[in-house]
Amino acid sequence: MKKIMAINAGSSSLKFQLFEMPSEKVLTKGLVERIGLKNSVFTITVDGEKRTRTIDIKDHEEAVDMMLARMIHYDIIKSVDELDGTGHRVVQGGDLFPTSALVNRDVEEKIAKLIELAPLHNAANLMGIQAFRRMLPDIPHVAVFDTSFHSTMPETAFLYSLPYQYYKAHKVRKYGAHGTSHKYVAQRAAEMMDRKPEEGLKIISCHIGNGGSITAVKDGKSVDTSMGFTPLAGITMGTRTGDIDVATIPYLMEKLHKSAEELLNVYNKESGVLGITGISSDMRDIEIAAEKNEGRAQLALDIYVDRIQKYIGQYAAVMGGVDGILFTAGVGENSDTIREAVCEKLEFLGVKVDPEKNNGLRGKEAIISTDDSRVTVMVIPTDEEVMIARDVMEFGELG
Amino acid sequence: MKKIMAINAGSSSLKFQLFEMPSEKVLTKGLVERIGLKNSVFTITVDGEKRTRTIDIKDHEEAVDMMLARMIHYDIIKSVDELDGTGHRVVQGGDLFPTSALVNRDVEEKIAKLIELAPLHNAANLMGIQAFRRMLPDIPHVAVFDTSFHSTMPETAFLYSLPYQYYKAHKVRKYGAHGTSHKYVAQRAAEMMDRKPEEGLKIISCHIGNGGSITAVKDGKSVDTSMGFTPLAGITMGTRTGDIDVATIPYLMEKLHKSAEELLNVYNKESGVLGITGISSDMRDIEIAAEKNEGRAQLALDIYVDRIQKYIGQYAAVMGGVDGILFTAGVGENSDTIREAVCEKLEFLGVKVDPEKNNGLRGKEAIISTDDSRVTVMVIPTDEEVMIARDVMEFGELG
Repeated sequence: MKKIMAINAGSSSLKFQLFEMPSEKVLTKGLVERIGLKNSVFTITVDGEKRTRTIDIKDHEEAVDMMLARMIHYDIIKSVDELDGTGHRVVQGGDLFPTSALVNRDVEEKIAKLIELAPLHNAANLMGIQAFRRMLPDIPHVAVFDTSFHSTMPETAFLYSLPYQYYKAHKVRKYGAHGTSHKYVAQRAAEMMDRKPEEGLKIISCHIGNGGSITAVKDGKSVDTSMGFTPLAGITMGTRTGDIDVATIPYLMEKLHKSAEELLNVYNKESGVLGITGISSDMRDIEIAAEKNEGRAQLALDIYVDRIQKYIGQYAAVMGGVDGILFTAGVGENSDTIREAVCEKLEFLGVKVDPEKNNGLRGKEAIISTDDSRVTVMVIPTDEEVMIARDVMEFGELG
Repeated sequence: MKKIMAINAGSSSLKFQLFEMPSEKVLTKGLVERIGLKNSVFTITVDGEKRTRTIDIKDHEEAVDMMLARMIHYDIIKSVDELDGTGHRVVQGGDLFPTSALVNRDVEEKIAKLIELAPLHNAANLMGIQAFRRMLPDIPHVAVFDTSFHSTMPETAFLYSLPYQYYKAHKVRKYGAHGTSHKYVAQRAAEMMDRKPEEGLKIISCHIGNGGSITAVKDGKSVDTSMGFTPLAGITMGTRTGDIDVATIPYLMEKLHKSAEELLNVYNKESGVLGITGISSDMRDIEIAAEKNEGRAQLALDIYVDRIQKYIGQYAAVMGGVDGILFTAGVGENSDTIREAVCEKLEFLGVKVDPEKNNGLRGKEAIISTDDSRVTVMVIPTDEEVMIARDVMEFGELG
């Protein structure tokens, strides 16, 4: 029996979840917010109950220190010696990490090198890794990359139609994201369908939350995904544009007297359903506003659904059909209306959703298609943390 | 019986075609190249034979003058009084021109206003119009917009997920292109299928030449199209990237020390199959190179086909299925191998191509699907000029 911790470090936050492996039992989980700011917030779940305290935490090392002390305080572990390994979400593995990696000096350097491809995320992920390595130098730390699952994409899918040297010299290509999530839910989907992935099973995985990406999974492998060089591309998201004509950038630079960098920030943080509606980036707010016929909420919903349908259509074309479609993440797990709206036009693919199974279903694993639907439609709550813990188990003395 | 001329003016070129209407008989056609440069080239077809002369032509008015003189010289018309009207291709009609327009001062001003949305094209188109209006002040001149056919797209399709004021204040939205072509071939497709468009007929029109766009046509109306704010978006083209993550722009600006404008030029003119292969922007060259296993020609072909398949898949999703798929323009009319490759993965939509009908078919109207194919697949040579002439006939005393 091992105790493995899954970590997701942001620039001012640290999410953690402690597993007993291989049972995959969650011993505790929690979150540190506002690291480096006044009034940092530390939250930990003890016996199913959240305990929160507000205190200044100056950096990620202090956050790790406090987390370990609190786990001992609450008797979740007796000492730090009980921890057998940690696994860290890293957003960008470029083409250097087709699989997870046991962190050493070389791996850290490579993650640092990839910061230019994901400036905010990789820098923060690396800070988390470094804090844990300093605090717990004697156990293995594993980096689990959001991009690894997509490393099986063929060149046809990942290469842009740019001058080829932009790819060779500057690594400009599609990398995708949410790979750990897509991998988990696609595996679960095959189990729920009682099918072996490698026997040509064709799954379209819709990870739709505040961010969102759609992935085509054939034979258990990612063959295409909607996010691109960065997480900006693909479907309409909470605050991101998704796919858009690149020519809008120089045009708007001139009109708005903004730099390309500033516009990219608008495209990432002030666009999507927030940009269309001006109301909110949260689909729950948008759904409520649409019911009340407020502003452009219904339009934003329609666009949101349209872009997801388009990716399902194109990935059916990429794989030559589809056997299963799954919904996961915040919106996918919880919004029956969006699931229904997405599937409505897909009858030509053989999709039939059973309203009785879909309506009211929130956050639970279930098949929501009718028994005679040619395509199995599923809701599958994602669990990136357990995938991270599983990957840690594969390494070194833990295997 | 009327004599109507269809015009396509570029910045240094002028294409013309003279029709007898309503019979749609082509009386002559020709091309003036290198206008404003040394050694301009004037070409006109007389009795099916091309006559070319090289001479300096300093501007579009001189080009029109020469064209009229040569038509009289070759006895195609006896005097300019025989001309009853002209129709002019205009690339960008923005949201100001949902239909063709009889040119007056106001229309000219609007076309000029739209130059900022299509700097090269609209300015040249307007030059052509102005030259004809000055030379032939007494007949009607009609502007026929590449975007008009797409004016029926719903907001869901044409609106980007940007801050809404970018659309309201700065007109940033999807406009599409090749509208006159898509309209012509979609009408022909319905005729070939012996179906009434307005009875829910679902057509996917693949206009693939050096540029290229895919359009979803439902009830005879464009409901979505792959080009965007500009012709850069959509499928991979001869020299254009098509869809690509916008975040590549600021990244490459820094890496290559180029401005956004310079990069946009690369994305438009040095990318696409030319960029991938470094060989050519012409699919005929790429197909030959692929057969010889040269460089990345096969890869470029695969990407080219992949992007078209994806658009067919997504437009099937947009329309909830598809009844007919048609190929037109340079590549679509002439490349049996690309048509076959595109259709190969589409059996899940009910597409079955008959190799006997497809193989070797070049530039001729034909159904290339099997009799039992649920989707009718067609090759339809486009004819934007006749559509322009028809639109001229609709106006004023000609109607």
